[in-house]
Amino acid sequence: MSTQSHDQYRENVAGRADVEDTPELVAYYKELDALKTGALWTVANKIEPWQPQSSSVPVLWRYQDLREHVLRSVDLVTPEKAGRRVVYLNNPGRQDVAAAVGWLYSGLQVMHPGEAASAHAHSSSALRFIMEGRGAYTIVEGQKMMLEANDFVLTPNGTWHEHGVAADGLPCIWQDGLDIPLVNAMEAGFYKVHPDMHQAHTRPIDYPVGMWGGTALRPHDIGWDKPYSPLFKYQWGPTYEALQRAAKVVEGSAFDDVLMHYTNPLTGGPVMPTIGASMQLLRPGFVGKAHRHTGSFIYQVAKGKGYSIINGQRFDWQERDIFCVPSWMFHEHVNTSNNDDACLFCFSDLPVMHSLGLYYEEALVDNDGHQKVIS
Amino acid sequence: MSTQSHDQYRENVAGRADVEDTPELVAYYKELDALKTGALWTVANKIEPWQPQSSSVPVLWRYQDLREHVLRSVDLVTPEKAGRRVVYLNNPGRQDVAAAVGWLYSGLQVMHPGEAASAHAHSSSALRFIMEGRGAYTIVEGQKMMLEANDFVLTPNGTWHEHGVAADGLPCIWQDGLDIPLVNAMEAGFYKVHPDMHQAHTRPIDYPVGMWGGTALRPHDIGWDKPYSPLFKYQWGPTYEALQRAAKVVEGSAFDDVLMHYTNPLTGGPVMPTIGASMQLLRPGFVGKAHRHTGSFIYQVAKGKGYSIINGQRFDWQERDIFCVPSWMFHEHVNTSNNDDACLFCFSDLPVMHSLGLYYEEALVDNDGHQKVIS
Amino acid sequence: MSTQSHDQYRENVAGRADVEDTPELVAYYKELDALKTGALWTVANKIEPWQPQSSSVPVLWRYQDLREHVLRSVDLVTPEKAGRRVVYLNNPGRQDVAAAVGWLYSGLQVMHPGEAASAHAHSSSALRFIMEGRGAYTIVEGQKMMLEANDFVLTPNGTWHEHGVAADGLPCIWQDGLDIPLVNAMEAGFYKVHPDMHQAHTRPIDYPVGMWGGTALRPHDIGWDKPYSPLFKYQWGPTYEALQRAAKVVEGSAFDDVLMHYTNPLTGGPVMPTIGASMQLLRPGFVGKAHRHTGSFIYQVAKGKGYSIINGQRFDWQERDIFCVPSWMFHEHVNTSNNDDACLFCFSDLPVMHSLGLYYEEALVDNDGHQKVIS
Amino acid sequence: MSTQSHDQYRENVAGRADVEDTPELVAYYKELDALKTGALWTVANKIEPWQPQSSSVPVLWRYQDLREHVLRSVDLVTPEKAGRRVVYLNNPGRQDVAAAVGWLYSGLQVMHPGEAASAHAHSSSALRFIMEGRGAYTIVEGQKMMLEANDFVLTPNGTWHEHGVAADGLPCIWQDGLDIPLVNAMEAGFYKVHPDMHQAHTRPIDYPVGMWGGTALRPHDIGWDKPYSPLFKYQWGPTYEALQRAAKVVEGSAFDDVLMHYTNPLTGGPVMPTIGASMQLLRPGFVGKAHRHTGSFIYQVAKGKGYSIINGQRFDWQERDIFCVPSWMFHEHVNTSNNDDACLFCFSDLPVMHSLGLYYEEALVDNDGHQKVIS
Repeated sequence: MSTQSHDQYRENVAGRADVEDTPELVAYYKELDALKTGALWTVANKIEPWQPQSSSVPVLWRYQDLREHVLRSVDLVTPEKAGRRVVYLNNPGRQDVAAAVGWLYSGLQVMHPGEAASAHAHSSSALRFIMEGRGAYTIVEGQKMMLEANDFVLTPNGTWHEHGVAADGLPCIWQDGLDIPLVNAMEAGFYKVHPDMHQAHTRPIDYPVGMWGGTALRPHDIGWDKPYSPLFKYQWGPTYEALQRAAKVVEGSAFDDVLMHYTNPLTGGPVMPTIGASMQLLRPGFVGKAHRHTGSFIYQVAKGKGYSIINGQRFDWQERDIFCVPSWMFHEHVNTSNNDDACLFCFSDLPVMHSLGLYYEEALVDNDGHQKVIS
Repeated sequence: MSTQSHDQYRENVAGRADVEDTPELVAYYKELDALKTGALWTVANKIEPWQPQSSSVPVLWRYQDLREHVLRSVDLVTPEKAGRRVVYLNNPGRQDVAAAVGWLYSGLQVMHPGEAASAHAHSSSALRFIMEGRGAYTIVEGQKMMLEANDFVLTPNGTWHEHGVAADGLPCIWQDGLDIPLVNAMEAGFYKVHPDMHQAHTRPIDYPVGMWGGTALRPHDIGWDKPYSPLFKYQWGPTYEALQRAAKVVEGSAFDDVLMHYTNPLTGGPVMPTIGASMQLLRPGFVGKAHRHTGSFIYQVAKGKGYSIINGQRFDWQERDIFCVPSWMFHEHVNTSNNDDACLFCFSDLPVMHSLGLYYEEALVDNDGHQKVIS
Repeated sequence: MSTQSHDQYRENVAGRADVEDTPELVAYYKELDALKTGALWTVANKIEPWQPQSSSVPVLWRYQDLREHVLRSVDLVTPEKAGRRVVYLNNPGRQDVAAAVGWLYSGLQVMHPGEAASAHAHSSSALRFIMEGRGAYTIVEGQKMMLEANDFVLTPNGTWHEHGVAADGLPCIWQDGLDIPLVNAMEAGFYKVHPDMHQAHTRPIDYPVGMWGGTALRPHDIGWDKPYSPLFKYQWGPTYEALQRAAKVVEGSAFDDVLMHYTNPLTGGPVMPTIGASMQLLRPGFVGKAHRHTGSFIYQVAKGKGYSIINGQRFDWQERDIFCVPSWMFHEHVNTSNNDDACLFCFSDLPVMHSLGLYYEEALVDNDGHQKVIS
Repeated sequence: MSTQSHDQYRENVAGRADVEDTPELVAYYKELDALKTGALWTVANKIEPWQPQSSSVPVLWRYQDLREHVLRSVDLVTPEKAGRRVVYLNNPGRQDVAAAVGWLYSGLQVMHPGEAASAHAHSSSALRFIMEGRGAYTIVEGQKMMLEANDFVLTPNGTWHEHGVAADGLPCIWQDGLDIPLVNAMEAGFYKVHPDMHQAHTRPIDYPVGMWGGTALRPHDIGWDKPYSPLFKYQWGPTYEALQRAAKVVEGSAFDDVLMHYTNPLTGGPVMPTIGASMQLLRPGFVGKAHRHTGSFIYQVAKGKGYSIINGQRFDWQERDIFCVPSWMFHEHVNTSNNDDACLFCFSDLPVMHSLGLYYEEALVDNDGHQKVIS
């Protein structure tokens, strides 16, 4: 027990703790401490806040700033030594857990044609969103899938997976998204290196898309009992088409315009139990209103340009930029083009918040729903 | 109680009833009858059969036979008098309940350009599979959807719905599929005529497809708590593409080759609680093996030509023909073309069989899995 | 096709079929018939009724009438010849399917001390409600359970089961409840005689109750993936206590006073997918109001006396009497004692109606919610 | 970025990061840091451990040590100033989040006859397990429940709740269990004081038990759509009886003997989405084997005496003692009495581990399944 005061969290509000340190109490606190206990009223107001106060800060990572550094890692370290050549996003408020925001990890990975990382498995769940290049592939549980820009692929909890780039491809950069910090926090992190360093893959290329990539269709022989999506690969083409179709018929959300969540087609639920993903289209000229909700969110600009105001701070973004929205911070999005739509890919811990019954949401009422920007 | 014998179902098998009529027993049976009761052993072997014996018979309805009659109904009756101009499929074994097979109703309906049926609702669930024409539409719960050949649309239990053909269209023929016999059997049939005869429809055309027609995507604001699919309209184009993609990567079922079930994208389950639907692709030259299962099935040939052997009887089919497979009858399908694939649309009571735990399946073992055809 | 008229179901209501027979039409109908088809408008009003019209009739079976006949079966037939000595309830409107009401079978079975029926399995689901005697037992899937009056036990779809009475017991009578008619209607009836005629039973007596009989408790090692309840045996003692506790705190339903459904403790759902069961307590002097709903219901009076008015007909009942309520018939219950409560056990196809989305309910509005009794 | 070395987590294992600091790399790391990024290979081995390493330590809190201190708080602080008089369990490894183990908070609370805490609500979920006294009650959402030793009651996420002791009772001590640290970690903590400081309670005492406390019974009118149990109060009496019944028929687990989980009777699932609870009975002389699993667990000895070996350390316990088992630490339990059974109440984050797909389990294989005790 530190020697600091025990009454630093006092609040003079009925129903809240408001106990002043006295010599008698401090002596009592010392006795409690020796018993590996404490007096609740010394910490109650701290551990039961009126509302969430995220330890993360809003950050925009500009691709033009990061790209060069990512590419440089190829010269600096070998895959054998580094495992993976990744520049990870390190939120100033979350450096202790290497998180981009909340309990979510994210990094930019680069791989050259002909390179292939070794296979491993972990209890963390991951997705991989392609940013540039040609010939990228991922093999998950023996199933090889080819990937293009704005596609993403799942490598869920417990699956053997490995990444590579075809020999006749181009250097590829992608964004990794994982729940590593969450899994560590839950003290459930396991890691395995594949005994053969690489998986056998006997199924035809893109088998999961052939089986599960239909619109509102499922194979007769499901052959699936996992808690994550059997589709694995989510393609930009049909997603963008679907958003455009939707944009023609729906009114859209005041906060998010046309927002679609990627689903596990077998259940209609999220793609993995711990990480959800979505793509949203902001129609030309869309000016969103502000709301806030629990959960941590990482966006990548898949198309277009605009800006977001997060916790009163304006962040201008364009294609490939990445930004985060911490829990319970107000945010609003704007498409600054009057001609082109803008698309935001997002992954988050929304499925966790829903599973645990911890999702809360609130619209900004004041100022016609718009935040005042702090310059 | 009839005066007929009470020992007509005797079986000389341990564990089965085998009681011969005697004067004393017959007198006893008479007393029981007066009390609105009976002796179980007089009927046990009848009501507990060793395996199902369907009362339906396999039938192939050739479109070339039916089409002219369907069209003729336009001249014979007015929509006002007939309600709907429909030629229904009347299985010889199920005429008492007007079923095409088992507890499923089906009929071919015709409508001329500019015609519009009045709106109604019923506790039966329905689907409508387009066979020919141009300009067909259905309005369900105020949502108007345009339909083309091999599309189908749901009008589920309790929904207001109405059909029509655009004034600049062509005469349309479609197949209706309903669970009317089942709902009547369950003594739960309700019917309502819309008070205004027609629904208001304020949403954009094909709104459900815009909202729910993405691949493994769902709208952020679900707004849906019904037990049936919010997609309503299932289009031939993306379905056929998905089957073709699957055909390239899957081995396929020995019985059904490449078979996909239409789903409720919100749940991954069947499109409605009482009627399921599927589309299957038989690759060129496919020769299926025989199996049998519980449930009643109605097929329409969406593409190609071939034959099916059902209960030892061969039925040659081509595009637009309709045939049925009664419960627990062996059946096998063949695509007789070596160049073109064949596609079979099917609707059935499979969701009912699964909900009630009554789905059973068995492959034919003898004769290399092929039935002997009874000429 | 019969030669009878085709316009017998005409209704002069907008949106309904109202087509008069003409020579031309009759000729057309004849042609359709030859093609195994018909004209919908000739049957539409029949197969799409405005509301359900049950083919079952309300019946009260007095135990004092039946008991002697049930006991007499022991002298009339041997278990070897009869299989089971059962007097089944034969609703006058459902004699073709040997149902007590709707698609539910029920019978009274008798067994003498030391007798044991042979083991069998079927795709029908069953329950067995004990009426009198001592020493009754049931073995389901190798698990032996002892049964007393007002207990019931499940023998679900596909389970090996057999019944008997201990050698030192008393003659036992119980009510069987099964979905045989439904399973036959769905053309999914299978029957098997156990190869050894009897099961081995190695688990301790009443194992399922030890595992699953706690209040809001489940074993750590569930070991269960069946669609029916692992508890199997539902005892009168704790059920009656629970109803008495509830009667002290709840207002109760205007129709049913204190009504509890037996559940599968693993899911909170019904005990089996096709048959639900409930016990209700009518407090002294309770006079219920009338309502009607879809589904077929068989009641046995577990305790007390009173009467029910079903479809305008009054049925006075006392302990052990059995009566049925057909689908969509108004019914209301009265406990005629001002001192003692009355308890009604009931089993029904309610789970089916819910699974299929066919449950509809309606309170009687007129006459302060009470039916006029037809004398 | 600290100036410390970046290669402190190197592992010389294929597939793991093994990059040595060089001046060039350190300069690169500095550039990355300025961009709010880092090089994954400098932290990869730290954030992707081979298996979980809990930051909590095993602790036994002896009731004889704590009781006096808990009672003394009554003299030291007023309820008005302290809010609640609670001595909380402060795991040496988790003092930063005031957790007893992992992300679970626990404390011992005392209240004198006639005292009543004010009503509040929070997004944390709580349960309250009674240790001693008479007349304790909790009011949740207007429903008042009386509580005795070894009973527990839920006050789930979002519910108004308040505690008190009847004026004619005795001083009461109970254990609180909450997910406060988890909810704070998820940045979803909200807190509200009731506007009237106390709830109205119009329902009869113990209404939830009357409605939901039956064995495998549910009320006809469910009236419940919350994600937590409508039963709220779980009583020692029927729980202990159920465990004794089970102990007569089950073989028991090698690790936990007879272990039952408290359930939400509406779903068969855990009592709340974030906290599960169980009671287990160790039969006289039971010597358990060791296993380990993910999740954090807090035990209270409800009955008897014995010891547990946790992570190689032996903890002797008797009635009312509390101990914790951190994630992935081996543990085994022993009942040292040969005559009396011992019962352990436990609450944990098991539902979270299951929802997130992070539950892993492993038996100790060596040494016949027993840990070596570190003296």
